[in-house]
Amino acid sequence: MEKPADTQFPIHDLLSRRWSPRAFAERPVEPGKIQRLLEAARWASSCFNEQPWVLMMATVDQPPEHVKLLSCLVEGNKVWAKRAPLLMITFAKMHFDHNGKPNSHAFHDVGLAVGNLVVQATAMDLVVHQMAGILPEIIRTSYAVPDGYEPVTGLAIGYSGDPSSLPEEIRERELAPRSRKTHQEFVFSKTWGETPDIL
Amino acid sequence: MEKPADTQFPIHDLLSRRWSPRAFAERPVEPGKIQRLLEAARWASSCFNEQPWVLMMATVDQPPEHVKLLSCLVEGNKVWAKRAPLLMITFAKMHFDHNGKPNSHAFHDVGLAVGNLVVQATAMDLVVHQMAGILPEIIRTSYAVPDGYEPVTGLAIGYSGDPSSLPEEIRERELAPRSRKTHQEFVFSKTWGETPDIL
Repeated sequence: MEKPADTQFPIHDLLSRRWSPRAFAERPVEPGKIQRLLEAARWASSCFNEQPWVLMMATVDQPPEHVKLLSCLVEGNKVWAKRAPLLMITFAKMHFDHNGKPNSHAFHDVGLAVGNLVVQATAMDLVVHQMAGILPEIIRTSYAVPDGYEPVTGLAIGYSGDPSSLPEEIRERELAPRSRKTHQEFVFSKTWGETPDIL
Repeated sequence: MEKPADTQFPIHDLLSRRWSPRAFAERPVEPGKIQRLLEAARWASSCFNEQPWVLMMATVDQPPEHVKLLSCLVEGNKVWAKRAPLLMITFAKMHFDHNGKPNSHAFHDVGLAVGNLVVQATAMDLVVHQMAGILPEIIRTSYAVPDGYEPVTGLAIGYSGDPSSLPEEIRERELAPRSRKTHQEFVFSKTWGETPDIL
């Protein structure tokens, strides 16, 4: 199943094809593709090149590890994410290495790294569903997370599957149209709320 | 000038070619390309699809606006960013629209939107230099930023220029090799610090 963005101006195929499905095929993610996902995250930009991201990963071919990572998600996500063959938790290092001060861009830069990973995934016909619905305290305990790191998101990664495999309520969300704010709602020039001439 | 990532595993060209130069050509960014940059940001994913990003933009063909946006950057960035024909400030809406509660993923999701913009830029032969070095209080005043929004970054966007146009100290940074952490430093499985078998 594909669900391309209904764009007002043309954008690159790797961006318009990206979406966040909940139905995954049984096919595992090849190790070589996982390496390339991780490499893509690695080359994101970051404030002071601090690279404040950490990725904890589990694959379905190691069932105890897959179950352990799945247990870090809220119930509403477990229901469908259990079929994703590759799961990750992302973390942000909240202080700079170079001076120990708080890094207010840590979460932002995790977003940049995950964004890279998602582009690479799309280029390899994989899909990624990012989840804010995670259980930080369980994550801290399960993975012995050191002080100074915050869990940010969960990632469910795999090949797109058949929406009919999903429970009814989730299937409806899977098939609902995609929507976004208008440009007028988020792009300004001159002052707050003023739309640029080009829009 | 190009400065592709020295990758350990192959990644998509749009990710390996991306870098953050400080030298810009005089050529302005075509309005049609600006529209596509904004559209790319628009289609990023976000927590609850809240799209907590706002972009304030200024182009060099409106000099007072360009100068106004430039004045929101720290001195070290103004020196080179003044030659970028398209400047932006990004903002995060810190509370959810749907329930008024704090959105802890606001900065993260701005990162995803900017990541999309950068991919689209790279696909159109543009370069983007993201800057944490901004002046939040000046931004708030200059643009009448409402409560509840935080300035996140500045973006300098344009066509790549000749590094020899830069002051010497900046030119050295422009020509320095790119570096990243090893995978072993940020990818774990089973528990914190343990490297997955595939790496």
